[in-house]
Amino acid sequence: MTTTIRNISLKEIISFCDQDIIHVFGDYADVDVKYLREPSKVDSHTLDWVNHRGNDKQQMAENSPAMVILTDSSVNYSEKLRLQKKILIQVENPKLVVAKIGNYFFKERKQPKIHPTALIHPQASIGKEVFIGANAVIGDCKIGNNVIIQESVIIHDQVEVGNEVIIKPGAVLGFEGFGYERLEDGSLIKFPQLGKLIIHDQVEIGSNTCIDKGALSDTIIGKGTKINNLCHIAHNVVTGRNVIITAQVNISGSTIIEDNVWIAPNASLRGHQRIGKGAVIGMGAVVTKDVPAGETWIGNPAKKHMKS
Amino acid sequence: MTTTIRNISLKEIISFCDQDIIHVFGDYADVDVKYLREPSKVDSHTLDWVNHRGNDKQQMAENSPAMVILTDSSVNYSEKLRLQKKILIQVENPKLVVAKIGNYFFKERKQPKIHPTALIHPQASIGKEVFIGANAVIGDCKIGNNVIIQESVIIHDQVEVGNEVIIKPGAVLGFEGFGYERLEDGSLIKFPQLGKLIIHDQVEIGSNTCIDKGALSDTIIGKGTKINNLCHIAHNVVTGRNVIITAQVNISGSTIIEDNVWIAPNASLRGHQRIGKGAVIGMGAVVTKDVPAGETWIGNPAKKHMKS
Amino acid sequence: MTTTIRNISLKEIISFCDQDIIHVFGDYADVDVKYLREPSKVDSHTLDWVNHRGNDKQQMAENSPAMVILTDSSVNYSEKLRLQKKILIQVENPKLVVAKIGNYFFKERKQPKIHPTALIHPQASIGKEVFIGANAVIGDCKIGNNVIIQESVIIHDQVEVGNEVIIKPGAVLGFEGFGYERLEDGSLIKFPQLGKLIIHDQVEIGSNTCIDKGALSDTIIGKGTKINNLCHIAHNVVTGRNVIITAQVNISGSTIIEDNVWIAPNASLRGHQRIGKGAVIGMGAVVTKDVPAGETWIGNPAKKHMKS
Repeated sequence: MTTTIRNISLKEIISFCDQDIIHVFGDYADVDVKYLREPSKVDSHTLDWVNHRGNDKQQMAENSPAMVILTDSSVNYSEKLRLQKKILIQVENPKLVVAKIGNYFFKERKQPKIHPTALIHPQASIGKEVFIGANAVIGDCKIGNNVIIQESVIIHDQVEVGNEVIIKPGAVLGFEGFGYERLEDGSLIKFPQLGKLIIHDQVEIGSNTCIDKGALSDTIIGKGTKINNLCHIAHNVVTGRNVIITAQVNISGSTIIEDNVWIAPNASLRGHQRIGKGAVIGMGAVVTKDVPAGETWIGNPAKKHMKS
Repeated sequence: MTTTIRNISLKEIISFCDQDIIHVFGDYADVDVKYLREPSKVDSHTLDWVNHRGNDKQQMAENSPAMVILTDSSVNYSEKLRLQKKILIQVENPKLVVAKIGNYFFKERKQPKIHPTALIHPQASIGKEVFIGANAVIGDCKIGNNVIIQESVIIHDQVEVGNEVIIKPGAVLGFEGFGYERLEDGSLIKFPQLGKLIIHDQVEIGSNTCIDKGALSDTIIGKGTKINNLCHIAHNVVTGRNVIITAQVNISGSTIIEDNVWIAPNASLRGHQRIGKGAVIGMGAVVTKDVPAGETWIGNPAKKHMKS
Repeated sequence: MTTTIRNISLKEIISFCDQDIIHVFGDYADVDVKYLREPSKVDSHTLDWVNHRGNDKQQMAENSPAMVILTDSSVNYSEKLRLQKKILIQVENPKLVVAKIGNYFFKERKQPKIHPTALIHPQASIGKEVFIGANAVIGDCKIGNNVIIQESVIIHDQVEVGNEVIIKPGAVLGFEGFGYERLEDGSLIKFPQLGKLIIHDQVEIGSNTCIDKGALSDTIIGKGTKINNLCHIAHNVVTGRNVIITAQVNISGSTIIEDNVWIAPNASLRGHQRIGKGAVIGMGAVVTKDVPAGETWIGNPAKKHMKS
């Protein structure tokens, strides 16, 4: 296992996030940083930051062992900071700027490449700058540009994947949903599953998550929606934009999730419901009804949560 | 991605489901249909249907844009239908007949084939007309006839799979269960897992579902039982016939599920319990006791649901 | 499918667990046993045992059809046992001794071997006596000695795996966690995930379980911790020693689980909580707070369980 740490020039970082910067205090011309780190491990080479939602921000900045600190504009370049020759970078949302810097400077980027063990249907349409990992199996589908499909992902025929989508290892996409009619003798006959699965741009799909194709209509995952590991999303589910579906969530058939909804881990949503825009579903909530926009529902069965 | 739509002669369809038909009204000699579709997208080429459990069935049939409509016998071949030259096919359970037609005429059937990347133990016994997908790994087991084993399925040694079984991608079958004795120093020693996993005919197993082999006895999945994605079925579990186990259900060790039980998504069943014939377990229910036959249990902890 | 049953000499078994034995009654010189079996299938060739936590232990031993019975020292070598020429082996914890015997004599051991389809990063460091199954993908990581990595396991770069670790099929280890900042237009930007995943000795990880690497710190799984199938363990989670995490458990980001905690199936633990030493979390519990050491919490939301 190799571990490489490189020096990154602060000048380069400041130039990268120039638009987010309110002001820079201190002389950063020859300063380098080496890492982003958790609070307990911050040292002088760390690019440190103070969350704008926190308290005691001035004190946190002044006590940081780091030479370079990102804060919001409520933190002053005090005598103490100046005497220590610290560099203070003021931005509106330090966490967001740290995220941008981290993703750009500290994260290894996947180079577009199709692994030789990946199996791709000859009629599949694959966009530009696509990464497809080892043992992935791609059916007769349409994959956009700048897509990352990781190891052992299985995508069935008739799946449409937009641009800048990330699909993590072991995800299973676009196979038949689960719907049965019981005959009089108790045996079960499957209702035909003939729809497609459509995944819009900038979606992320977690490891070992399963998303079924539609029955007679299509399953649709809206632009910018992020889905974590081990979720089950059934036939005909439709999500809006920028929905957050955390780990182990179950969304049963034909349920509609509107924009910006946030679903906590292990929640279960009954089929044929509508979760209104910006609603929040609590951890382990068992949702059996429509949830109006903006409301928070928790519990089993889930009910509206009155904030106290 | 290729999408092909073909014309299917209504004469052929009517002949296929002849035994289910009560009566056909209208002249269908030269009529073709093209698809099954969700209600909002029905057009004149769709084979439409009216659910026998619904209301306003006469009106729904008369307002359908389709030329061919399946209904139960309570819908009449009215003046309005006749004038539009519609074809009305009366059957007892339209949803069931649509399912049969959909599966036969509109669904692509998997041709039996063993993918060259599938790895099969040399002593394994594989039946006739079996499909084994890419990257599947099959141990020293016995697989019946007309079985579909999809991509990346992993089946351990000592698993018996009946006929007409469908196993979806990423399922992991027949590995060791989870049972430990804690020693005085806190460390854990595994109880031996020596049993088999036996899967009877016409079972379906969902994507990324895990079913462990037995400890000292066997894990058994009964005939016609259908299991959805991401379920965990522990050692020594025994299910009866035609059980429905929906997504993300947990069944702990040695629990017995009798015939025709229906378990909603994300329910958890404690070990060493018995779920009686035809019982219904609600979504997210946490079942810590035996459930008598025919009862519905919901909640955390689950209790008998009194229908109001 | 091949099934082999061999005779195992009782003399050999007694010599193997000599240190656990209080006393052996009866003449075992020429006795063989063939299997460990569930109570209803015990026959004269079975090595039977009576759980020391049970009742009627004397009667159970005397009524066993087996010739060889393991019990605690409260069971006497009665007239009845003697007349039947039974062999009675007294130990302190019969279940534990059966586990040891089962694992040693009755379980097939995996021979160290790297399957030709396994893909291993050229800079990865792989210990001695390691088994790596078909289609496993191992990134630039460090793997200890006597490790078993089963089929289709995917391990990302920067994962450290200790000695005697077992990783079951389809597990996905060390990929990026799930953490987003929402921008004003609703879109989501990922917080960088730069930490490692460290797995200590004697850990077991279940099939299709996902463990994410840390964000700025590391995700750590402590020595002897056992994790069952289909669990989700998020970034920065730290577990102590000998923790039991059963199937489908969700542990959200940065939660700390102390030694010897027991988490029942399908429980969900909120992020940034601490679960104290030896605590027990009930099936389907939704834990939103710190749990003090030694307490049992159940329900949704989880509360302290007062034993009655």
